[in-house]
Amino acid sequence: MANPTLLILAGDGIGPEVMAQVTRVIDWFGAKRDLAFDVEHDLVGGAAYDKHGTPLHDDTMARALEADAVLLGAVGGPKYDELDFSVKPERGLLRLRKEMDLFSNLRPAQCFDALADFSSLKKDIVAGLDIMIVRELTSGVYFGEPRGIIEEGNERVGINTQRYTESEIDRVARSAFELARRRGNKVCSMEKANVMESGILWREVVQRVHDTDYPDVELSHMYADNGAMQLVRAPKQFDVILTDNLFGDILSDCAAMLTGSLGMLPSASLGAPNADGRPKALYEPVHGSAPDITGQGKANPIACILSFAMALRYSFDQGDEAARLEAAIEKVLADGARTADLMGEEGGTPISTSDMGDAILAAL
Amino acid sequence: MANPTLLILAGDGIGPEVMAQVTRVIDWFGAKRDLAFDVEHDLVGGAAYDKHGTPLHDDTMARALEADAVLLGAVGGPKYDELDFSVKPERGLLRLRKEMDLFSNLRPAQCFDALADFSSLKKDIVAGLDIMIVRELTSGVYFGEPRGIIEEGNERVGINTQRYTESEIDRVARSAFELARRRGNKVCSMEKANVMESGILWREVVQRVHDTDYPDVELSHMYADNGAMQLVRAPKQFDVILTDNLFGDILSDCAAMLTGSLGMLPSASLGAPNADGRPKALYEPVHGSAPDITGQGKANPIACILSFAMALRYSFDQGDEAARLEAAIEKVLADGARTADLMGEEGGTPISTSDMGDAILAAL
Ligand SMILES: CC(C)[C@H](C(=O)O)[C@@H](O)C(=O)O
Ligand SMILES: CC(C)[C@H](C(=O)O)[C@@H](O)C(=O)O
Repeated sequence: MANPTLLILAGDGIGPEVMAQVTRVIDWFGAKRDLAFDVEHDLVGGAAYDKHGTPLHDDTMARALEADAVLLGAVGGPKYDELDFSVKPERGLLRLRKEMDLFSNLRPAQCFDALADFSSLKKDIVAGLDIMIVRELTSGVYFGEPRGIIEEGNERVGINTQRYTESEIDRVARSAFELARRRGNKVCSMEKANVMESGILWREVVQRVHDTDYPDVELSHMYADNGAMQLVRAPKQFDVILTDNLFGDILSDCAAMLTGSLGMLPSASLGAPNADGRPKALYEPVHGSAPDITGQGKANPIACILSFAMALRYSFDQGDEAARLEAAIEKVLADGARTADLMGEEGGTPISTSDMGDAILAAL
Repeated sequence: MANPTLLILAGDGIGPEVMAQVTRVIDWFGAKRDLAFDVEHDLVGGAAYDKHGTPLHDDTMARALEADAVLLGAVGGPKYDELDFSVKPERGLLRLRKEMDLFSNLRPAQCFDALADFSSLKKDIVAGLDIMIVRELTSGVYFGEPRGIIEEGNERVGINTQRYTESEIDRVARSAFELARRRGNKVCSMEKANVMESGILWREVVQRVHDTDYPDVELSHMYADNGAMQLVRAPKQFDVILTDNLFGDILSDCAAMLTGSLGMLPSASLGAPNADGRPKALYEPVHGSAPDITGQGKANPIACILSFAMALRYSFDQGDEAARLEAAIEKVLADGARTADLMGEEGGTPISTSDMGDAILAAL
């Protein structure tokens, strides 16, 4: 049987640096665990714009649609700030999400024991935190039409449209309930149904999916503003949080920062299953392209490596191998290996991006 | 000269209880500081719905437009959860904001020294925190058309519209820059210009207002998701945060919760100045109607009393009297008076809503 294919889009900023360590880990699984992948590389974001004048070339889009999974590094950087909206690095990522129909974005917010002190929150509030945010990723205000800047009277008006169909809400709700069953069996859905009709429909459909097919999962609803408060006040009350594209963008970043482990957090963006049962899938770290430390060997590769662990679990049904990789990373941290972002007040000498890769390979 | 008029809309839940203490404070200023107000009372939210079948009667709307300032308690409660969207308690509040044209919502997120331990954040991250969030309040996705739930094919679609005109952005930006000049002289504007065209226009207009009329104020721009992260990571980096209606809803609640002083935070919603130089204005606590403790004498009246202090400052040009009231509250807290929401782990006996009113009057 042919090896499964991985398309690597390292992107901009620290993307290529952290991805170099992921590639080493992939090679290790091929050599040592008989899990070989056919790996291809291509460009996305500013890197694609520099070469092709577009943040995602059509050929790359086609390869992404064919790959068994896509691993993405990061996109964007100050160099591209003045570009027109239509060719900004972010558009490449948004096109991938949309055309691969990756409607379910899983963002774990997990606090690593060894790192609980890094959080700006009190240790007892975040130690052991393990939330999964399920963010709708292909609709809502990110993609709704009409949109744009139009002339009206003698001024301009900026317009975007929040739009959700019942089926869009239905399918992402199902993915949240499925996940919850494999975790704490609790879903909290967040919207602004007190202010937005799209939120009313959201709440109604989530409730219906629950009552019809997942009555065993505990479901609650919360207004998104209160959700932000509760995340800060007592994040451990949550198991799975289900929310839309825009609220998910903000709430998942808020939750990620609570953990103090931003350089550690992976994400998976999943679509519908193919004929072979594998979902269309893209994996990427939660952190951005970090232009301030690019090229200095300071970046933490763990979030990106954990994104590959998520790929093992969600795309290739290799939960045990994913757990092996995650355990290696926990060990390395417990042993005290720290990249610059993980240096606390005690000080010490940070290790480089590739040192961290070495340590993880050694632990494997 | 006639006394200035105050319209009190106590609303639902703990609204009437906390407002009863505000009324005592208002009376004190009339008796002791020669600052008499003509106070009227009316209904809003669920209380108005119960009596009139609408969360804001037209007569009340007319009185609000005529009053020199409106003080609002809180709206909403589980009793009204099943009501139709058009008559939900929140619609009363939203109608007031819209018809009074209260485009600039000031939400201080301030950490009171005596209460820094209450925050879920580490003390050094929040002690001394003093941010002002300026939230646009009369436009954006809260009010944009088209909106609703429509049929399309064989399913329903929930639609809301994010819409900002140049002049709407211009005027709220000015209010943020004006405020910044009287504080730390720094504004950080937040949107999602990387994803939304309305955010692009927002950024452009804010920058133009700055360059034209407020070049002395330090201006930065941040994506709203990063804004949520930075609020959690290092909130003291901010002075004034300027943002739109929906982002403001979420980010201001997040910021409020950081302080650990939610029961302490007031807000002001201001419109354009009238002929007499006074802006149309509504003042209300940031906290909600707290149905779980309603009628038990447990509610903390301080947020609502501080909202009256904001009224003294922003509507009646009585900054010294506002400071007097604020100082009385700080003294009471420093002396150890605590309502139930302010009880820490050390324990102790909380005082009642009216005891807190007594203590504040005594300190005055
Ligand atoms: C880069 C940007 C377009 C993106 C988003 O807004 O979705 C990012 O913030 C994210 O959360 O993945
Ligand atoms: C009650 C609700 C309509 C309101 C809002 O969403 O604006 C509240 O959350 C607020 O922030 O004042």
